[in-house]
Amino acid sequence: MADRTYGDIPGFPVGTEFVNRTALAASKVHRPNQAGICGGIDGAESIVVSGGYIDDEDYGDELVYTGQGGNDPATKRQKADQELTRGNAGLARSQLDGRPVRVIRGAGGDPKYSPASGLRYDGLFRVVDHWHEIGKDGYRIWRFRLVTLDSTDLPPDSSGDAGPTERVATVVQRLIRSTKVAVEVKQKHDFTCQVCGLRLMTPAGPYAEAAHIRALGKPHDGPDVHSNVLCLCPNDHVRLDAGSIYIDATGIVRDSSTHAAIGPLRRSLAHNIDPTQLTYHREHHVP
Amino acid sequence: MADRTYGDIPGFPVGTEFVNRTALAASKVHRPNQAGICGGIDGAESIVVSGGYIDDEDYGDELVYTGQGGNDPATKRQKADQELTRGNAGLARSQLDGRPVRVIRGAGGDPKYSPASGLRYDGLFRVVDHWHEIGKDGYRIWRFRLVTLDSTDLPPDSSGDAGPTERVATVVQRLIRSTKVAVEVKQKHDFTCQVCGLRLMTPAGPYAEAAHIRALGKPHDGPDVHSNVLCLCPNDHVRLDAGSIYIDATGIVRDSSTHAAIGPLRRSLAHNIDPTQLTYHREHHVP
Repeated sequence: MADRTYGDIPGFPVGTEFVNRTALAASKVHRPNQAGICGGIDGAESIVVSGGYIDDEDYGDELVYTGQGGNDPATKRQKADQELTRGNAGLARSQLDGRPVRVIRGAGGDPKYSPASGLRYDGLFRVVDHWHEIGKDGYRIWRFRLVTLDSTDLPPDSSGDAGPTERVATVVQRLIRSTKVAVEVKQKHDFTCQVCGLRLMTPAGPYAEAAHIRALGKPHDGPDVHSNVLCLCPNDHVRLDAGSIYIDATGIVRDSSTHAAIGPLRRSLAHNIDPTQLTYHREHHVP
Repeated sequence: MADRTYGDIPGFPVGTEFVNRTALAASKVHRPNQAGICGGIDGAESIVVSGGYIDDEDYGDELVYTGQGGNDPATKRQKADQELTRGNAGLARSQLDGRPVRVIRGAGGDPKYSPASGLRYDGLFRVVDHWHEIGKDGYRIWRFRLVTLDSTDLPPDSSGDAGPTERVATVVQRLIRSTKVAVEVKQKHDFTCQVCGLRLMTPAGPYAEAAHIRALGKPHDGPDVHSNVLCLCPNDHVRLDAGSIYIDATGIVRDSSTHAAIGPLRRSLAHNIDPTQLTYHREHHVP
């Protein structure tokens, strides 16, 4: 496992500028001289956003970042599929672990947010989602949505008295949202997991999570409707979101690595599921 | 199940003032004429904070609210233990479901945040924690920490284009934070759950969660150290936090409702656990 440093590098605060990649590498804010991602199977510590990938999107406090590989540096176009390996696996691992990722913007990126020349350290982000899709050049690309660390990342007690060190120490690993639709779907299944049948009991009653099959929010823009939601236990919610399991066209839950059947998705007559959302999930979240 | 309305009541925006409880009840912002909690086993829709309980704490955007029961309205002192029933069960249920709770402050509450007279609707909060303790009068009280809905509660895509309706539609049901210590403990156990032995696999590698035995942040103020952290699967993390399971003084994991042994806590020679934190968990989170 590489000797990684996550979080801020002392002496190089947010806004620090670097004349070139050599200076940046010397600072250890982003160690590789060429690669856009500093990371491997154990996690990713930093990325450079500098316009090298045609599919990148920059919204300032949020990025949709294209993984590495299959890219022709001369033309910046994709010429082969990307795999969930090396830096791509690292960003996915940092999402699973809730690790902060240093973001460096370089000239060549979106002019609205990028420095006019050289490179600039723009602070810590967290990876909130990853999936694959067919990029503009027709090849499979891996995509990572990163957002700036914000108040969400503060420990619960830190209102007012947290210094900058504490700010970067705690990262959201996973955030489960609930909506009116979510609660209704859980009630239809009496909080019983549609994958494994578990009804997780607590002293205050049963607990389940509502999983949007096609995620809410950009870029997936799944609808918040009953037919796009499953009632799952936390473990199977993680498995579905991470692409460990999928539901095939006949309603069988399968393991993504072996495609072995786990069992039929448990259904309720009161709860219809939209098969196009299941297709979307298979096409974007199963490696 | 009661016919409940969660979220804002149309026509009564944040800041609406009411001359008395009768006017408040008529608005349906808080329906009971006397009770501080409008809720039952299916959830809680609103609370009134008006100084009726000696243990209440008000920090403006955050409240530590005492449950109902065992209180002498004449003296405002506790004279009996509280149970996790009625409105108390409702607040715990709203935490499990990720339901918004309307908060109304009345004269008599903390003068810093309360109206000088009458009552005022102060918006939507979410329940982030509940536990029991011995209150100032020597009886068991249930406690609920509520925080205002904030940007955390917006759906991921809503930056800039979310109206007030969307703001209240999505509530954080559960938020898992990660720290450097958390990742280290998970690595010591190779992401294997210390309760059930599951190593949850995803295409990007194994996934586990670090559970702080004594929670970080106020009012528990548990330390972020290895000996206060367990490596758990998401299901057992929910069970531990909710008090469905506990670890007894001999290291056996037990079901809270029956006290039956589930099995020994899986240990690693590289990971010592502080028994005083296990005691704290048993004393505050097991009903």
